[in-house]
Amino acid sequence: MDGMDDDISRLTAAEASASLRRGDITAEQLARACLGRIGSREADVRAWSYIDPDAVIRQARELDKLPSRGPLHGMPVGVKDIFNTADMPTQHNSPIYTGHRPNIDAAAVGTLRAAGALILGKTDTTEFAGTGRLAATRNPHDLSRTPGGSSSGSAAAVADFHVPLALGTQTGGSLIRPGSYCGIYAMKPTWNTVSAEGVKLGSTTLDTVGWYGRSVADLALVADAFALEDDAVSDFTTLEGARIAIHPTPHTVESSSRDALEMMTRRLQAAGARTVQLELAEIVSPLQGLWEVVARLEGRSALLNLERSQPHLLHKEFVDRVNNVAGFTRTNLVDAYDTAARCRARFDQIAREFDAVLTLSAPGEAPRARTQGDNTLNRDWTLLHVPCINIPAGLGPNRMPVGLTLTGPRYSDRRLLTVAAAISAFDRPVSSASASM
Amino acid sequence: MDGMDDDISRLTAAEASASLRRGDITAEQLARACLGRIGSREADVRAWSYIDPDAVIRQARELDKLPSRGPLHGMPVGVKDIFNTADMPTQHNSPIYTGHRPNIDAAAVGTLRAAGALILGKTDTTEFAGTGRLAATRNPHDLSRTPGGSSSGSAAAVADFHVPLALGTQTGGSLIRPGSYCGIYAMKPTWNTVSAEGVKLGSTTLDTVGWYGRSVADLALVADAFALEDDAVSDFTTLEGARIAIHPTPHTVESSSRDALEMMTRRLQAAGARTVQLELAEIVSPLQGLWEVVARLEGRSALLNLERSQPHLLHKEFVDRVNNVAGFTRTNLVDAYDTAARCRARFDQIAREFDAVLTLSAPGEAPRARTQGDNTLNRDWTLLHVPCINIPAGLGPNRMPVGLTLTGPRYSDRRLLTVAAAISAFDRPVSSASASM
Repeated sequence: MDGMDDDISRLTAAEASASLRRGDITAEQLARACLGRIGSREADVRAWSYIDPDAVIRQARELDKLPSRGPLHGMPVGVKDIFNTADMPTQHNSPIYTGHRPNIDAAAVGTLRAAGALILGKTDTTEFAGTGRLAATRNPHDLSRTPGGSSSGSAAAVADFHVPLALGTQTGGSLIRPGSYCGIYAMKPTWNTVSAEGVKLGSTTLDTVGWYGRSVADLALVADAFALEDDAVSDFTTLEGARIAIHPTPHTVESSSRDALEMMTRRLQAAGARTVQLELAEIVSPLQGLWEVVARLEGRSALLNLERSQPHLLHKEFVDRVNNVAGFTRTNLVDAYDTAARCRARFDQIAREFDAVLTLSAPGEAPRARTQGDNTLNRDWTLLHVPCINIPAGLGPNRMPVGLTLTGPRYSDRRLLTVAAAISAFDRPVSSASASM
Repeated sequence: MDGMDDDISRLTAAEASASLRRGDITAEQLARACLGRIGSREADVRAWSYIDPDAVIRQARELDKLPSRGPLHGMPVGVKDIFNTADMPTQHNSPIYTGHRPNIDAAAVGTLRAAGALILGKTDTTEFAGTGRLAATRNPHDLSRTPGGSSSGSAAAVADFHVPLALGTQTGGSLIRPGSYCGIYAMKPTWNTVSAEGVKLGSTTLDTVGWYGRSVADLALVADAFALEDDAVSDFTTLEGARIAIHPTPHTVESSSRDALEMMTRRLQAAGARTVQLELAEIVSPLQGLWEVVARLEGRSALLNLERSQPHLLHKEFVDRVNNVAGFTRTNLVDAYDTAARCRARFDQIAREFDAVLTLSAPGEAPRARTQGDNTLNRDWTLLHVPCINIPAGLGPNRMPVGLTLTGPRYSDRRLLTVAAAISAFDRPVSSASASM
């Protein structure tokens, strides 16, 4: 039994879903396998802020008794600890919320539960998914390195086979960058396609709920649960003749990321895709500095209640944000809104000419320092509200994963999933964590 | 004592604040006066979905023992029942949430508590502040008429002297229209200046937290608590020489509203203001129909969790929204976003030439039918994200209040408050409910 449990914790969500539906495994077996893996790895990886194993097993048994609610029935899911959960604490990695039990599910959690998902526990995050206290989580590929933030625990938990799926959020680069650092698939859907109700607010214009899996099919299962739809069913079938725009960021990056982009470009060409270099200066230039303006000024109203009630328990970073120490004006904010809106329309127009735009997910491998890493390459996409998928794309010089981002116009989520599936079928997938771990 | 309590329930928030700070009244006396008024009127008005009088008195006594936290210390505030409250049920006028206690304060509620406010109870709302079940609330000026929705209870409670202040929200016209129908001051600040965290999500792009009072100074007290700031301190001092744009809506309205706008225009002119007629065709035409697209398609993701878990307890209106029965496409939504963004920039540019824009708050007096009333005149301002203040502006042929809206560019909230104060000082304020009630 133990041997089998070990095996099934390695299944992707799509594989586990098929096994569950065939009756080859039960939700209880899958949950026990995940708990077993966590038991052997959590002291090192520190992905979780809360798990109640008895409650998990109880819920798994209940799900096993019910008729299947669909592909996610019985599927263990990790939830970033800024989503409210009715049956677990929600602590935001903040001393203000130590032991806090909000007694209500975030909308996204409720939707997954309605689809039969088993919420396995809460994953560690940076303080309020911002830039205060870091998560305790370590990168499972090298414990001396960061998993990235702020969805640190969710990314590490999926990469290290603790759970097949996890929810996260992105305000700057908090889904895609940890996905890149941990070598897993990540999806940041089009802004506001998934409700952020019951999730700690950081910036209304930027916050985006998303998720992690270990295959493109995993990402698609969650997209199904959230009823993501493009206007037209994607007619994309093969990389042969596909039009892929390559966007080499103007920012300085490590050679590992440049190499990954170049290598992927050559592979796409080998598969028959037509690639075009896309500088996007007319998007990148006007957006320069605007993410910072929006994040800081919207963070002011988002954190006011905590600054007014418990400033001594709030990281100085957030207190400074409420007090607008950066000194941005509302004119700056309104200009940022209007410029971003113009760039959204223009980017959609440009990107519509291609099946997907391929770019970098992070400036290199996960750094060794106690840091979240750099979100410079993700900010514009977040502000543009466009869907992004991180695809693992090989290893850097330190044998750490490097990821690439597929993006496209708003509401091309489904098409990007089909393009990502074609790339991942063609490309030998990078194992998300080495088998020896 | 009873006589005095009766009197102090009639104080505006600004007057009560001054009395509290001078020590002329205590928070307990003020709370008892409000509870007394509610006791004598609630069977008719039905503004409240929850009040615990003992808990209110307990809190008032505690506040009386503390050093003042500022102008709102000890001030009773009603809270629309779509804001989470840690110590009261939050029921959204939905059978899904009957008796539901979320055990957490919405951010806006937390900010008011930090300022010393006494949350007196929860006010009735339409189902999820949308278009399903109506609130039970009646218009205190004529019980056979609607108070407007969705902030029905909050508006009626302030108009009928149950509380000096109340929180509401607007997605279409849910703050300004009930303000107009009930004859009180209402403020919908610039979008996203007050956190919507912990408030039932309807539409991320449209939902706006706002509030009611019985004077402009009352509105300003709450604006202070929420740290609302324009870039420049308003230099507006007098109506003499003020530049006021008059926007007669292109929509069909009752003569009571047209008359109120004309009469106010003449009064402004008599006070020395320079008025200009403003058609705004270049804003109104492109926005035609877009509010509906945004409200419906964003409502789809906002309500998905409830439709997936408890569709039988959800009004058909919401189920239809999730299933996109209206048949809008994502292209419609993206076009609506981009057009609205262009119109925001353009309206700001036009409105910046004036001290304020004056227009109608509702198409007439509160109707007699069981309805929320019409939000056609409010939708564009909500979508434009601009601040709006409802000013009571006389009575219609049925002796029911009629209101006018002051609006201006985004982040001109403070300036609008100074203009509203000047108008209300010049104009004899309309009593918010007749003294004989």
